[in-house]
Amino acid sequence: MHAPVEFADITADILARVRTRAPRVHCITNSVAQQYTANLLLAAGAVPSMTISPVEIGSFVAGADALLVNLGTFDTERRAAIDVAIGAANAARKPWVLDPVFIELAPARAQLARELLTRGPAVVRLNTAEFAALSGDDPAGDAPARLAKGHATVVALTGGFDLVTDGARRAMIANGDPLMRLVTAMGCAGSALVCAALAVETDAWLAASAALVALGVSGEMAAQGARGPGSFAGAIIDALYALDRGTLRNRVRVS
Amino acid sequence: MHAPVEFADITADILARVRTRAPRVHCITNSVAQQYTANLLLAAGAVPSMTISPVEIGSFVAGADALLVNLGTFDTERRAAIDVAIGAANAARKPWVLDPVFIELAPARAQLARELLTRGPAVVRLNTAEFAALSGDDPAGDAPARLAKGHATVVALTGGFDLVTDGARRAMIANGDPLMRLVTAMGCAGSALVCAALAVETDAWLAASAALVALGVSGEMAAQGARGPGSFAGAIIDALYALDRGTLRNRVRVS
Amino acid sequence: MHAPVEFADITADILARVRTRAPRVHCITNSVAQQYTANLLLAAGAVPSMTISPVEIGSFVAGADALLVNLGTFDTERRAAIDVAIGAANAARKPWVLDPVFIELAPARAQLARELLTRGPAVVRLNTAEFAALSGDDPAGDAPARLAKGHATVVALTGGFDLVTDGARRAMIANGDPLMRLVTAMGCAGSALVCAALAVETDAWLAASAALVALGVSGEMAAQGARGPGSFAGAIIDALYALDRGTLRNRVRVS
Repeated sequence: MHAPVEFADITADILARVRTRAPRVHCITNSVAQQYTANLLLAAGAVPSMTISPVEIGSFVAGADALLVNLGTFDTERRAAIDVAIGAANAARKPWVLDPVFIELAPARAQLARELLTRGPAVVRLNTAEFAALSGDDPAGDAPARLAKGHATVVALTGGFDLVTDGARRAMIANGDPLMRLVTAMGCAGSALVCAALAVETDAWLAASAALVALGVSGEMAAQGARGPGSFAGAIIDALYALDRGTLRNRVRVS
Repeated sequence: MHAPVEFADITADILARVRTRAPRVHCITNSVAQQYTANLLLAAGAVPSMTISPVEIGSFVAGADALLVNLGTFDTERRAAIDVAIGAANAARKPWVLDPVFIELAPARAQLARELLTRGPAVVRLNTAEFAALSGDDPAGDAPARLAKGHATVVALTGGFDLVTDGARRAMIANGDPLMRLVTAMGCAGSALVCAALAVETDAWLAASAALVALGVSGEMAAQGARGPGSFAGAIIDALYALDRGTLRNRVRVS
Repeated sequence: MHAPVEFADITADILARVRTRAPRVHCITNSVAQQYTANLLLAAGAVPSMTISPVEIGSFVAGADALLVNLGTFDTERRAAIDVAIGAANAARKPWVLDPVFIELAPARAQLARELLTRGPAVVRLNTAEFAALSGDDPAGDAPARLAKGHATVVALTGGFDLVTDGARRAMIANGDPLMRLVTAMGCAGSALVCAALAVETDAWLAASAALVALGVSGEMAAQGARGPGSFAGAIIDALYALDRGTLRNRVRVS
């Protein structure tokens, strides 16, 4: 549907808008992921905020440009915060991303994820085990497209390849590096980057694809100089900060 | 009031005392900032502790040498912990720093910050938006000095320039690097460094100025080799660890 | 009991098993330590999970291969989570490690640590101040061996030297680097590495010794290129990721 060069330019354009407009992304995310997520957003040009207090999250979200709902920590206060935050985002017509972390290990969390899916996330980003737990379907085949179509959302299924579908369109993204799996919260931070892209691009399928392309290419650049996952974690932030159109045109592998 | 060389020497002396005495700084801070704050304190030679449990924070603070009260997370348990901790610090005559993070976005948090201001912080460290929310005044002009004088505290207003005033004296610090704004929790960690300085220097205006000078010069040193905010985040910790009198004398820009 | 070369080979074998089997280690740990602990486990080849929600921790632990119980955060929810998690680990005969952080500063935490000691940890990892608070005894002399024997556990006492004893056997580990003390959560992450080793080695004394040897040698390798604690924090993760039998044979100092 789009040639790689076209995707490279779309990604470069979306990154440029993030850098210019500095959208604020409010993140409800687990405590393991908060620091890395904030640093990745800052490197992209966005502004993170992270409170989960139910009494103040409404005003934080109402003034933000996008919302991340990550289920990686599942306590009472966070559940209440999620409810208020989604209400505020929907009322203000701000896009939000659902990241149903580890729901394959926790039935109550999977149940909450299914409820949240009915409240209109712009994008659901998850891995194959999480997809199976959310949908009850095999992530191979047509199930992701069906889930996207059925809930009028975009499914971004990440793994060896990343698949992004809105039910009609489909991007298969081959960028990335295996070291990305050895940095905790890389997936969570990727979901936050999708939020930043959604804040400046109304086509959620393009926004999600561009964010995953940008992260994957940054991972490839970072792997070139890294001596292991410790140096890689900082290097991918450096690479995203410096990512330019030329690098994207040379590197993007989307089909 | 002090020439740059004099400030360089004061900063070097305060750093030397922190390295020798290894003061313990108890930090009530947000979960995004905890790790980076702890690592910055360790690099400076101080010892961090971080519990926020209301049942145990009193004994942690009573035995500490300084206390950081950061409002970046605002849940019920943390509010209770703040109340106990300030009581314990004041009873033991230990200095404490107020860092009213993001109060411009959250009225309830701003209200708490105004209450805490009456309980005798040695230093209030904040940016211009937070200052406006705290005081209702324009941060330009005389308002910071008035706030400091009115509450017998030191105001450390950070931004492009850092302004430190106790109402009578005023330091304008031009050190620092733009990459510092792209590392999450840099401001929070800076407030913790002010705590470490307060633990070894009773003149709170000198202590706050020295801590911000040390962090700013470390930022300049780190920026020389960094490839972006990812490598910069580690490099500024390395630079603070290695910071010496000669570098300070060459670099300090205070007026 | 074991020559250094023998310890090097045991450590290399245990690391190889962790890399092959990718055990999941569930960590109840403080929020300061979560990210670094997760990244260290990933670098070793293990898989971290971190929820502390009492409603879901049971299923997370039942499916895990080992459990870390770190007392560094001491709130009501975490106490409840610890109780459920140890119950689940013991029911499923999964090994768990007790890390009684900072109990010398908090009597209630010390009391909980003494209770948990009776519930069958495979290993207790702690420093000398924590040992004194836990046992009421001087950490020098026979007290660690007595505590281990009395509770049928392994005591891993870390400091300038690491001492690992099960009451009968004793390893003194001289590997490591002073920079390790300047990275927050290094001890907590080391306890998590002990968990990963326990997941693949039923002799808890060997597992604990191997994990501390691996971390100490990684610290020595990392110190060679580090410019300070900031770069060291990433470099030790790189070094653990790359650690091989040859390096261990050259470096291990155990008596």
